[in-house]
Amino acid sequence: MPRELETIGFIGLGHMGKPMARNLLKAGYPLVAHNRSRAPVDELAREGAQPAYSPREVAERSTVVITMLPDGPDVSQVVEGRDGIIEAARRGLALVDMSTILPRTSLEIATHLREHGIAMLDAPVSGGPQGAEAGTLAIMVGGPRETFDQCRPILGAMGKAVVYMGDNGQGVMAKLCNQVACVLNLLGVSETLALARRANLDPGRLLEALRAGAASSWMLVNQGPKMIARDFAPGFLIRLQQKDLRLVMSAAEELGLPLPGTALVQQLFRALEASGEGELGTQALIKAIERLGAMPEAPD
Amino acid sequence: MPRELETIGFIGLGHMGKPMARNLLKAGYPLVAHNRSRAPVDELAREGAQPAYSPREVAERSTVVITMLPDGPDVSQVVEGRDGIIEAARRGLALVDMSTILPRTSLEIATHLREHGIAMLDAPVSGGPQGAEAGTLAIMVGGPRETFDQCRPILGAMGKAVVYMGDNGQGVMAKLCNQVACVLNLLGVSETLALARRANLDPGRLLEALRAGAASSWMLVNQGPKMIARDFAPGFLIRLQQKDLRLVMSAAEELGLPLPGTALVQQLFRALEASGEGELGTQALIKAIERLGAMPEAPD
Repeated sequence: MPRELETIGFIGLGHMGKPMARNLLKAGYPLVAHNRSRAPVDELAREGAQPAYSPREVAERSTVVITMLPDGPDVSQVVEGRDGIIEAARRGLALVDMSTILPRTSLEIATHLREHGIAMLDAPVSGGPQGAEAGTLAIMVGGPRETFDQCRPILGAMGKAVVYMGDNGQGVMAKLCNQVACVLNLLGVSETLALARRANLDPGRLLEALRAGAASSWMLVNQGPKMIARDFAPGFLIRLQQKDLRLVMSAAEELGLPLPGTALVQQLFRALEASGEGELGTQALIKAIERLGAMPEAPD
Repeated sequence: MPRELETIGFIGLGHMGKPMARNLLKAGYPLVAHNRSRAPVDELAREGAQPAYSPREVAERSTVVITMLPDGPDVSQVVEGRDGIIEAARRGLALVDMSTILPRTSLEIATHLREHGIAMLDAPVSGGPQGAEAGTLAIMVGGPRETFDQCRPILGAMGKAVVYMGDNGQGVMAKLCNQVACVLNLLGVSETLALARRANLDPGRLLEALRAGAASSWMLVNQGPKMIARDFAPGFLIRLQQKDLRLVMSAAEELGLPLPGTALVQQLFRALEASGEGELGTQALIKAIERLGAMPEAPD
């Protein structure tokens, strides 16, 4: 039995959220949009979204609310703060939090919302702004299976791989695992290209060879060319990557698992932050390796 | 002007060399084969290769000699030792060394051979035994451009990406860069899947999500499933990976470049070697992480 299209509320229209919301509009969903700063709301309103002025108003006017926010405290504020989503609680409302936050925080918010009749999914994403724009994100989902089934078409308009991981919190846990592989792949590209530069290899030819073999990765293909071009614009901010790594190391500490490689990357990013470079894209990790070898900033 | 097909000599019929030589036979090249142990020579002879009993004999009976050997001393022995290739020196003979050895060693052998009229390429590969069998290796080549042009069709029968890197030694230097990315990607998969196991995530679903996003890599796709299945058979031996990492760290030391991530992986592999596990495949790296967290050997 075909359902009517859900009316979607979207809160958090940043580098990721805005292109994701746009893909929902393109897929034909009625969309109610809210953001702390006004500009992206006005931009989406010109493309057919209805503006809203608080999370509560978003929740009152939609059947599924999506949040895409920087960190756990932001999600807590939008859900449980003044004029928050929970004030519009009614049975049947669903919240899909696509932010990357601590699994424990996500689970606590989900438990709180359930007491008010709101079902929640944690559904963080991987694939960067380019994946968000192309609608090809990987989306890892935790929460009640029936809410996942309800929201799957919506998620499918934003991602190409929508994977149900299990109970509340397991989506964000999967995302933290994802970040571990991401940053170590990025370290691999950084050490590889720093070594190649020091050895006077042609970096373009090297990438051509490496992407065809066992060294290949999304990071090599997407971030390698930026490192070679000395293009350190974000992309994904070091500052936000560090937020994710704090979550990873906090979750790993609770689980009693040392992650020496991930910890090393965290420290190298910290060195870049210490140099005032936290607002660069994560591909600037190569600078941290180059500096260890006292290599000049500009290529030879 | 089409050339007659070269007669290829092939020395070193191990896990990589044998399937590579077989692809040359399949492509129609006359092949003279030699190996320290006899079994793989006999096996290829049944498929049409002509057996030879020394590197010198191989060189006497072929126009291009390929070597695929474990390390630099093996290549030196086969080239410069008793009954070595150099004893069959004549103008126009070419040596294509596809082993992974030190760039400096490769350059020294090339210089020595040139004095005897033999041109040499260093042309190491990436892609593992599966890439060798499928003929889809990445091949990084250093040496004289005209020798590269002469040998390119031969290399094309073994690999899908044949990339000219520059002078003698630059092919193996590129391969060392390749190994840096490989082992750090492998560490990424290891820390990711150890964390996932500790957090009781479904590892198959996690891989499905991760391979669709920014965490994806050849290692994730090819080694991740083996880690999950606790299949630690080689593949690529830890002992040989450590040989490569010694070359990487030696080259990086000469160049004055610290590689903290690569060094960490080297130490983790050393812990596995200390446990008598150097003959396992490199995907056993996950065991080193799990042991740091006192996780049991068998999955829960």
